[in-house]
Amino acid sequence: MSEPGEKRRQEDYGIDYLQRRLDREFPLARHIRVQTESADDRGVVLRAPLAPNANYKGTAFGGSLFSLAVLAGWAWATRYLAARQIGADVVIQESTIRYMAPASGELRAVLEAPAAAAVEKFHRMLERAGRGRIRLQVGVFEGKTLASQFDGLYAVLLR
Amino acid sequence: MSEPGEKRRQEDYGIDYLQRRLDREFPLARHIRVQTESADDRGVVLRAPLAPNANYKGTAFGGSLFSLAVLAGWAWATRYLAARQIGADVVIQESTIRYMAPASGELRAVLEAPAAAAVEKFHRMLERAGRGRIRLQVGVFEGKTLASQFDGLYAVLLR
Repeated sequence: MSEPGEKRRQEDYGIDYLQRRLDREFPLARHIRVQTESADDRGVVLRAPLAPNANYKGTAFGGSLFSLAVLAGWAWATRYLAARQIGADVVIQESTIRYMAPASGELRAVLEAPAAAAVEKFHRMLERAGRGRIRLQVGVFEGKTLASQFDGLYAVLLR
Repeated sequence: MSEPGEKRRQEDYGIDYLQRRLDREFPLARHIRVQTESADDRGVVLRAPLAPNANYKGTAFGGSLFSLAVLAGWAWATRYLAARQIGADVVIQESTIRYMAPASGELRAVLEAPAAAAVEKFHRMLERAGRGRIRLQVGVFEGKTLASQFDGLYAVLLR
């Protein structure tokens, strides 16, 4: 990170980069108005307003909470790879979501990067085998309330 | 089912009934153009065209496949209860989804009702405790290809 080239690359793959990719690659992300709040190696935060995601009771639809979470995982892995000039596709393979509390306001999907050892193992597997898998966890919050907890296993394949 | 009143009630809670409730209660279901293909005690089939559910590669977005599946479970439980004049809310509590194959055409979410013993246990618990839980499984197909397998635990609370 002390090298100017490295610093520039990381900044090139920040909020604006990720927002462009989300908007271009997922029409549903535009419809539910996903906004990138932060994006770096350490984590990703995506936001969405309640209105396009609400059911008739004025709480968030389970499918919207899932969509926001699965996009947060995709977003973290996609920008991690892009920032390292690794051309690869990220797809969800399986996931579990638990719904703890109804959400009736703006939604925030918060992903903290896995432990460095897990990320390094994933990176090495990708270099060695041309494919890898990584498990990513996302909490979806309304204010301080944890509405949903998402656990996803993503598969990555070099192009 | 040999009683005319009972027969009429079952028919009153068919495709049109469920479509009205989906459209009214889930704005996202309208956006992704969910259509009820069949709906009775034995199962529910929901359809959606690819276009509003596709990503940039022309395959279905994982969040759309999840949304279609979670709505199929909601739909089965909701019409089962309504057809028996049971006023209750159905919410998803936790679920697992596996993605087996990309889907690049019309999507069909197929739910077959659980075994009669499981449905009866759920029904009795609801009468006794005012709340119950039921596990529902949905396969999302494109043609004959199983694209996703969804397993959801739904909580039901009498109003």
